[in-house]
Amino acid sequence: MTLRKPPLSRRDELITQAQVLFFTQGYDGTTVSDIVQAANVSNGAFFHHFATKEALLEAMSETLAYQSAKELEKSIQDRRLGAVERLNILLAHARGQKKAAASTHQAVFEAVFWKNNAVLYDRIATAAIAVFAPVLAKLLADGVAEGSFHVSDPDITAEMILQLAFVTRGAFTQIAREDTREGQQRAAEQLAIRLQHFGVVVDRILGLPDGTLRLTHDGYALDLAQSRKGRARRRRAEHYLGGKSK
Amino acid sequence: MTLRKPPLSRRDELITQAQVLFFTQGYDGTTVSDIVQAANVSNGAFFHHFATKEALLEAMSETLAYQSAKELEKSIQDRRLGAVERLNILLAHARGQKKAAASTHQAVFEAVFWKNNAVLYDRIATAAIAVFAPVLAKLLADGVAEGSFHVSDPDITAEMILQLAFVTRGAFTQIAREDTREGQQRAAEQLAIRLQHFGVVVDRILGLPDGTLRLTHDGYALDLAQSRKGRARRRRAEHYLGGKSK
Repeated sequence: MTLRKPPLSRRDELITQAQVLFFTQGYDGTTVSDIVQAANVSNGAFFHHFATKEALLEAMSETLAYQSAKELEKSIQDRRLGAVERLNILLAHARGQKKAAASTHQAVFEAVFWKNNAVLYDRIATAAIAVFAPVLAKLLADGVAEGSFHVSDPDITAEMILQLAFVTRGAFTQIAREDTREGQQRAAEQLAIRLQHFGVVVDRILGLPDGTLRLTHDGYALDLAQSRKGRARRRRAEHYLGGKSK
Repeated sequence: MTLRKPPLSRRDELITQAQVLFFTQGYDGTTVSDIVQAANVSNGAFFHHFATKEALLEAMSETLAYQSAKELEKSIQDRRLGAVERLNILLAHARGQKKAAASTHQAVFEAVFWKNNAVLYDRIATAAIAVFAPVLAKLLADGVAEGSFHVSDPDITAEMILQLAFVTRGAFTQIAREDTREGQQRAAEQLAIRLQHFGVVVDRILGLPDGTLRLTHDGYALDLAQSRKGRARRRRAEHYLGGKSK
């Protein structure tokens, strides 16, 4: 008699294996069969949990957003610090996470921005806002209580700030489309400018002096842009070498 | 020999007739055949201009956004007024337009919010931002020049403000889903609260005192919500009476 894995761990196993495959061979370069093989489950098991590869990516994004939100929450536990400092710690942490979660981010990047997939973007963004909004709202409420932030409704303010993060979407789409080093650099500059403005806008929304919050740091946008470039290049190479395709 | 309409006017005629039909029988209740018949053109002519009914709706939205932007631009021509006053005139005008353009707005509302169609929403919103951003950016630049607005980049600021308008999307989706008068009222309150906050956020982004700009007025959100309700009710009635469906 074969010991069958319980359903929950099988779903997790599929997500974990997919994550590794997306990172090593790209989202497009990974088929459902690849994932099923790596996870050592049947095709039926895959489709029991996910209608499509895209559905798995969505679930993966949700899981990662949840883990990321938990970590961010932990990073701002030290209540001896003021709310402004805690918010800057949270923002720095969030930038750090983007690198650590390169595999999912890369898969999302490919699936959403390469193909300009509005449905998937919308689902992932909505799910992410739902997960991050309460963490940010709590911190805003702390800041209001201690007199550092000046907003009347922390919940709606958190929602609006997260909504504003979407102004970087165009710049990300542009990065995904650029093929040359110069194009990537131009797109990275556009992203950096938007992140700087975003920072000032959040300062003002919270009633802080311009330049209080840091939403970017030197080289951050270019780093992000160039990690994409490596992938785009590798994928093109794979394509010409007759590598796997969907 | 039959006189054939030139292509441009035929496209416009299709849009104009579709607009009337969407208003009288709803977006879903209108078929491509209905539009073709009303415009007195062939099926081939329709599909020469639009791949689908949705593509026509998208073109209609772009046309309306363009007309609307031209009108808004005209409403703020009086340079004897200050930029703050001109921006408030523009905002009041924009609210007025929403009522006047009820037919398109209704069709968009049905097609986008009833079905939560992210692709169509994304296309229409992106096109609208592209059309409205330069008008707003010009006014912001005027305000910076006269010392009333305090922003470093009018173009990016205009883009961010328009991007923020999307925070009302959730409230609109909720309005579309609510069937009861109480549900509609709750959804309208949510929309009103978001519009008020949006106003304060724009004040702060531009460096103005809270409450300077008016993004809503008494009864505005409820008006919007209830005009939807009428439609939802009528459509249900049609459905039960065996009216046209897609």
